[in-house]
Parts: sequence; C-alpha cells; structure tokens
Amino acid sequence: MGDDCALLRPNAGLDLALTTDMLVEGRHFAADAAPRSLGHKALAVNLSDLAAMGAAPRWALLAIGLPAAEEDWLAQFSAGLFALAERFGVELIGGDTTRSPLRTISIVAIGEVPAGVALYRSGARAGDDIWVSGELGGAALALQRPEERTQLPDLARRLHEPEPRVELGERLRGIAHAAIDVSDGLVGDLGHILERSRVGAVIDYGRIPRAAAFARIGDAELERDCVLSGGDDYELLFTAATDERTALDALARELGLALTRIGTIEAGAPRLTVRDEQGAPTAYRGAYDHFGGSA
Amino acid sequence: MGDDCALLRPNAGLDLALTTDMLVEGRHFAADAAPRSLGHKALAVNLSDLAAMGAAPRWALLAIGLPAAEEDWLAQFSAGLFALAERFGVELIGGDTTRSPLRTISIVAIGEVPAGVALYRSGARAGDDIWVSGELGGAALALQRPEERTQLPDLARRLHEPEPRVELGERLRGIAHAAIDVSDGLVGDLGHILERSRVGAVIDYGRIPRAAAFARIGDAELERDCVLSGGDDYELLFTAATDERTALDALARELGLALTRIGTIEAGAPRLTVRDEQGAPTAYRGAYDHFGGSA
Repeated sequence: MGDDCALLRPNAGLDLALTTDMLVEGRHFAADAAPRSLGHKALAVNLSDLAAMGAAPRWALLAIGLPAAEEDWLAQFSAGLFALAERFGVELIGGDTTRSPLRTISIVAIGEVPAGVALYRSGARAGDDIWVSGELGGAALALQRPEERTQLPDLARRLHEPEPRVELGERLRGIAHAAIDVSDGLVGDLGHILERSRVGAVIDYGRIPRAAAFARIGDAELERDCVLSGGDDYELLFTAATDERTALDALARELGLALTRIGTIEAGAPRLTVRDEQGAPTAYRGAYDHFGGSA
Repeated sequence: MGDDCALLRPNAGLDLALTTDMLVEGRHFAADAAPRSLGHKALAVNLSDLAAMGAAPRWALLAIGLPAAEEDWLAQFSAGLFALAERFGVELIGGDTTRSPLRTISIVAIGEVPAGVALYRSGARAGDDIWVSGELGGAALALQRPEERTQLPDLARRLHEPEPRVELGERLRGIAHAAIDVSDGLVGDLGHILERSRVGAVIDYGRIPRAAAFARIGDAELERDCVLSGGDDYELLFTAATDERTALDALARELGLALTRIGTIEAGAPRLTVRDEQGAPTAYRGAYDHFGGSA
C-alpha cells in the first residue's frame, strides 16, 4: 500500500483465479444496512466465487465510493471485511477510496489453484450426481419475510453474512466435474452448468435441503420459490461421478457441512426437469436477472 | 469468461503489480461524457499506475454499474477500452455488469515486473535529478477552460484520452530510483515521493514543460495553477542519479517523448521548494484532495 500498485509474488506452479463484482446502495444493499455485515458479505461473495473454482483465497483489493468521509461507517465495514479476510488468510493488498453519491463497493479477490485442477462450469458429464452443500432458500426467505429475520437470527445471518464454502471448494479439486456457487438461485445457476457442459439434468424437489423455517411457516408456494429460484445462499452446487459418493459423504462429515445429492446429469439438450415428490415434472420460476427481475 | 472466476498463469520469476480505482458519473466524469473516450480513460489511468511501478500491463478486469442495459453506450465504452487494451497487449479476463443509478466503473489492471526491479515512491535519494515526461497542465487547462478544448483538439485529448506512459515505465527499470504518475498534480504527487523517501526537493518552475496553449493565453496565474497543481496529466514523474542523464536523454529520443529535468532531490525533511525564474521561492496551491477539493 502507498505506491501506485500492490505487488505480489505468485507461487510457482499455481494458477491465479480472479473475480470481481460491484455492489451499489439501494440495489444490492439497503442504505441502512449494518456496515459490519456488509463488509463481510462484500468479501464473502467473492470468496464464494473462488471456492466455486476450487481456488484457495489469497489476496483482495477494494475500491469503495462513499458520499462523505464517513469514518465510523468505514471502520465498521472494514472490521467486517477484515474479520472474514483474517479467518481465511486473505491479505488486503490495495484499493481506492473515492466519493460517490451512493455507497458503492467493488472488490477483487484473487486465489491460487494448482495448474490444471480448477473447477469449471463446463465439466459436467451424463450420469454425474448433482450435489449441493448446506441448505437453500434461507437467504431468499429472509429477504421476502423480514419479520422472520427478527425471530430467527440464523436466517438473517444467511442473508447478511453468508459463509463462503472455501474449504469445500478446495477439497472438491479432483472430485467434482463441474461447480458453481448458488448466488442467483438453484435453477439459474444449475442452468449455467447445463449450458456450458451441454447436458441436461433431473432434480428431485423433495431432496433439496432447505432452511428449517419453511416447515414451520407452511407456505408451499413461497418455499418452492425460495428453494428453487431464490438467490444469495452462496452454497456450492457441483456434479461428480457416482463412484465419489463415499468420498463425498466422508468429506461432509469431516467438514461438518451437509452435502446432499439432489439429482442427476443426463445426456442431451441443456434442459432441467424438476420432479415433485410423486416423480412428476413441476414448473419453476426462472433465474434472477441482474438487469431486471425474472428472466 | 463465463465461469465464476478468470484464470491466469503468471510467468515464473515475475512479480504481479495490481491497481484498482472507481470512477463515478458526476464526480469523475460528466453524464454526457463520450463513452468511447471514457472507456479509454478508465483503462488508461490504471495502465498509468502500472507504468509508474515499471510493470508491463497484461490483464484487466472490469466491474461496471449502469442505470439500464444501455447497449449502445456500453458498445462505445468497450470500443474505447479495447482499442487501448489491444495497443498494449492487455487481455480483458473478467468482469461484472450490474445496475446502478449512476454509471460507475471499476477497473483492475494487472501487470508483470521482474522480481526485485519494481519502482517505488520510496526510492528517491539526495542528489537525484527530478524528471518528468511530456508536458504538464494541459488536462487541467482543458478542464478549467472548456472553450480551449473546442479550439485545440490536442488539449481535449489530454483530458479525455490520456496516453499512459507504458513503454517509458518499463524502460525506467534499473534507471529511476523512485517514480509516480502525475494524476493529482505535480506538487501533490512529488509530495508523495518526498514523504515516502524522507527527502526534500527543489524544482525550478521555469523548467517545467507545459502545454503550448499557455503561452498564447497569457494568464500567468492560471498557468501556474495548472502546471504545478493541476491533475489528470498522467505523465511519469521520477528521480534518477545524475550519471543517468545521458541514458535518459537517449531514451527520450528513442521513445519520441520529452523527458525534462525540473529539479533536484535534497537531504532533509520532506519539504518542496518551487523556485521562480529569478531563483526565489514561490507559493503554490496544494494537492487535489479526493475527499473535497483543495487540501
């Protein structure tokens, strides 16, 4: 820091994975969002992208626009960001602070992955199991039913302070054929794997792990929408050969993180079938579209 | 592109230099700014940072927020960005497009520099010559006197499409002791070198190369303000031992780019003296402050 650029020395034999995004007040977070949580989330979503490629996070850069100097806000934001960075050994190596009428955050995260073992969206093969980590739908539920957040801190945490699946991503190297993180919703993100891999898929709605709160609320339509199409969960969705089931079950126990088989990759056009509990195809809402709601 | 991250393979034995910034409509560029020029400038200012470290530009990532899909605007912006990227062999390896009420651009540029030869702000030594490339004050003049821009396309170009001194930066490896790019103004940017190097400096106002338009306009106060304190020129300011004068004069001829000695680094506190044509110390306005005008 303090020079025109940050300098880093990559380790020989490793590829670098880089990801960036932009978060804008009013669009991606509320003006009164807790700055500490926001600092966490801004970095977490980028670490999640690294995890989806099987990369170990190493460095980050931050460009931030604020309407005024806002020292207290920035101190809390930084505390949230640095706490997560420290937990995963990520070094903040540079950045830019400027003025912007709306708070705007752009982070670049850089990870390392041994040459040739990164996970791509394009690697899914017919016959693969489709797996997902953790539970889905919790973040979308917290967004759509704010009153649940105040009752269930765990739900609020899923939305505001998602946990990037960093260790899982690294451990899936050599096991998963394809991977992505669930940022836009299961249906949309699985769709990206299908398109890039030129395969189809069948998933069983009843097998998708979901937040416990849905059972208590008892709104089947809301539940389906959140579980299939809700974004912001930042779980990993991946495919693997059926002979990896034992290894993945053992990995789930070791990491203390649920890994659940929810369907199968099929040969053919990139088409997704979601089966209900009776095995019949069921309708679903499309993916979240960053340029205007439902696609 | 198309996966969660971009992957790159660094060359063995090279360090990576990274720089990022954020440009916000209304703050860093006008809403009606020509998108093609803006695409050029957004990348140019980051390539200029790489040049100031002696790094060869290699890759870039773009995060952009737009109020609507704006396909035509984005096409022109991209054309400007890609034209410059292609000229310097920079590969755009990833990005993020999202919605923002105000157009907002954040670029990360990544360059390579052999291990141990990067240029820092902290390397200036007492007795060094202070050099600057090209001419100063043209961008500030274009900003303060818009009517000159329409008469002098060269002036408008200096403001809207600055030329990053990429080749010069690479050639200064092993020659310059310290370097920075003139983005905030000569006085402010030289101040960064003095603070980091813990040295003082004397510069001769009359020796500073400046845009030819000043002679015609004949406003001494405006000229002084633009030349000493105006930002946005993106020339390189550097220090080098006196026995490099012959090499630097030859380099200037080879690159077809003026390199001018404007002063001397002195031992002592980080204090800058600007001498007028009679050798007397003269007052100057401080550096541009990103959080609120003049410091």
